[in-house]
Amino acid sequence: MSDLLLPSTFGSVVLNRTERGNPAEGIEYKSDNSLDYKSLLPAQCVVKLAYAPINPSDINVLEGTYIRRPPALPATAGMEGSGVIAFLPENSNTECVDQYGSKLTVGDHVVGSPWNWGSWAEYAIVETNHLRIIPKSIDLKTGAMMCVNPPTAYGLLESAKEGDWVIQNAANSGMGQAIIQIAKARGIRTVNIVRREGLEQDLLDIGADIVVVYSGDNDFIEAAENVKEQTGGAKIRLAINAVCGRSGELLAKCLAPGGVHLTYGVMSQRPMTVSGGQLLFKDITYKGWHLGKFQAQKEKFKDMWTWLIDTVDKGKVTTSVIDTIYNLNQAKEAVKHAHSSNRTGKVLFRCDKTLS
Amino acid sequence: MSDLLLPSTFGSVVLNRTERGNPAEGIEYKSDNSLDYKSLLPAQCVVKLAYAPINPSDINVLEGTYIRRPPALPATAGMEGSGVIAFLPENSNTECVDQYGSKLTVGDHVVGSPWNWGSWAEYAIVETNHLRIIPKSIDLKTGAMMCVNPPTAYGLLESAKEGDWVIQNAANSGMGQAIIQIAKARGIRTVNIVRREGLEQDLLDIGADIVVVYSGDNDFIEAAENVKEQTGGAKIRLAINAVCGRSGELLAKCLAPGGVHLTYGVMSQRPMTVSGGQLLFKDITYKGWHLGKFQAQKEKFKDMWTWLIDTVDKGKVTTSVIDTIYNLNQAKEAVKHAHSSNRTGKVLFRCDKTLS
Repeated sequence: MSDLLLPSTFGSVVLNRTERGNPAEGIEYKSDNSLDYKSLLPAQCVVKLAYAPINPSDINVLEGTYIRRPPALPATAGMEGSGVIAFLPENSNTECVDQYGSKLTVGDHVVGSPWNWGSWAEYAIVETNHLRIIPKSIDLKTGAMMCVNPPTAYGLLESAKEGDWVIQNAANSGMGQAIIQIAKARGIRTVNIVRREGLEQDLLDIGADIVVVYSGDNDFIEAAENVKEQTGGAKIRLAINAVCGRSGELLAKCLAPGGVHLTYGVMSQRPMTVSGGQLLFKDITYKGWHLGKFQAQKEKFKDMWTWLIDTVDKGKVTTSVIDTIYNLNQAKEAVKHAHSSNRTGKVLFRCDKTLS
Repeated sequence: MSDLLLPSTFGSVVLNRTERGNPAEGIEYKSDNSLDYKSLLPAQCVVKLAYAPINPSDINVLEGTYIRRPPALPATAGMEGSGVIAFLPENSNTECVDQYGSKLTVGDHVVGSPWNWGSWAEYAIVETNHLRIIPKSIDLKTGAMMCVNPPTAYGLLESAKEGDWVIQNAANSGMGQAIIQIAKARGIRTVNIVRREGLEQDLLDIGADIVVVYSGDNDFIEAAENVKEQTGGAKIRLAINAVCGRSGELLAKCLAPGGVHLTYGVMSQRPMTVSGGQLLFKDITYKGWHLGKFQAQKEKFKDMWTWLIDTVDKGKVTTSVIDTIYNLNQAKEAVKHAHSSNRTGKVLFRCDKTLS
């Protein structure tokens, strides 16, 4: 393995702030010379990054509102991405395995576990047990978006069984679409709440069973009746809530007795009203859900990953539609675009300038 | 066993209505002649009732607002009580065992599992497996109140371990006091929220660790700070909520991250506000709790019962203080009194007129 393949400096998008503020103002594109690959620890390697998305959680990190913060500043931004193994330390073959024990070789395609590296960069030093090998038959753009949304969707749906009905709001978001596709692949039926008309056909096309419009204001009972009618009064035992406020309350209203109401987002930035009757008579449980909780269940998470690689590889689940691809030196522009409502899919970084 | 011990008619308090209304108007004292003890099934027996309390849940049944309703009308009212085995069918010794397999004998002191009989009567035909023998060393007045509050308190506290802190509201109610005593007996520390000053010493006397006044209106943050100060910032992982509204929200505010918020009552008749932050960042779970759920876990419930009999018998847990004892033919007056705020303990029926 020749060192010559590795550059002495490379570009990265660096976060310098943890207090609250405008997301695009928190970052800077920099030329980095910290890639000291001669001092790699035995269980580390160098990844040449391919693509990395801008997720809502990345935006929240940049604006200082996320549940987790970088361990120290400056920190390379970006929480997931795809890449190629560029360098492995010599004489340490036994330690060079990915998270699930597969031997790593230079040239392997890998994706990164969130939280453990900054993916908005050309290169990164990564602990090998934070990486997972993906088949070369999976496109690296698709691979770049496999680590956050699909596992979150799978985990949120974990308690549902084939044939069950679930209900979600924000169904046209990237996460909403991942939930629809993964539910479909697992034989779970979905009721999908969206805020405006015109999105129905797109969601039905990717596997939604029912789409109901609820603007969040005055047609609450009508929306609940609409759900009841379209499902034939089926018992819905799981609600997946990204919005809170009235939209989160609508999901509770539609749940069957004994149902579980899982919140993973607060897009409305409004609280929910919970009545004693819903807790006592309807026996609804309200919980929050976060990917970290699911990742901590290592065996279940591994089973999910095996299933996901196979399902994505077969084309049964596709990751988000891409709106625009930016180079890393366009970081501020890319983040502004990702933060706007003026897009129809994911904004991605092209970390490797030689890719299309 | 002589039939002569049993009367051909006896008094009972009968419920004739399931629609909503004034609790005292829903009942009538009647002379009953339905005690056909000659046609007892092998696993039935006749209990001569001693005492039966008027619980809040009884009031809710009478006013038509309870989670459960009598299977048919007219129904004898009353959901718990104590009594003495008066008659067992002959030639069926093998079936004559109580809920936990102890052989029943005429003269045994028993208490009844809620839901399965009308306890506001002089006599009742009961399935033997709905009864539990209690030692004769336990007073029958105490026994009459062992089946609802103490098991509910024990079940609500089930997830807490020795040394843990829990927080509850309505701490001066019968249930609140049961929670304080059972927590104390199990080494669990309690923060007790009450609505008005002057109750502190009574609750400290029965084992409360901390009592904090919160009127439900304007001193929310002050009350939370008060809890924090008095517990030395201890992590409170369980909240037991009988009130909902702002009082229920105060419990959530005082919970540590990952805590569980259990609702068993809605005394304020107001809903609670739940923020996305409480679900996502504080990872609070909100659930309802009902005695029926705990009873369905038969082994755990049996262990509780063994513990409870021993603990009550040793005087470590006492059931509620008694305000007044009424005869069954004073039923309307007794229910009015129990339904008023003008009392300092339980209202009990004396079902057996020969008792004091």
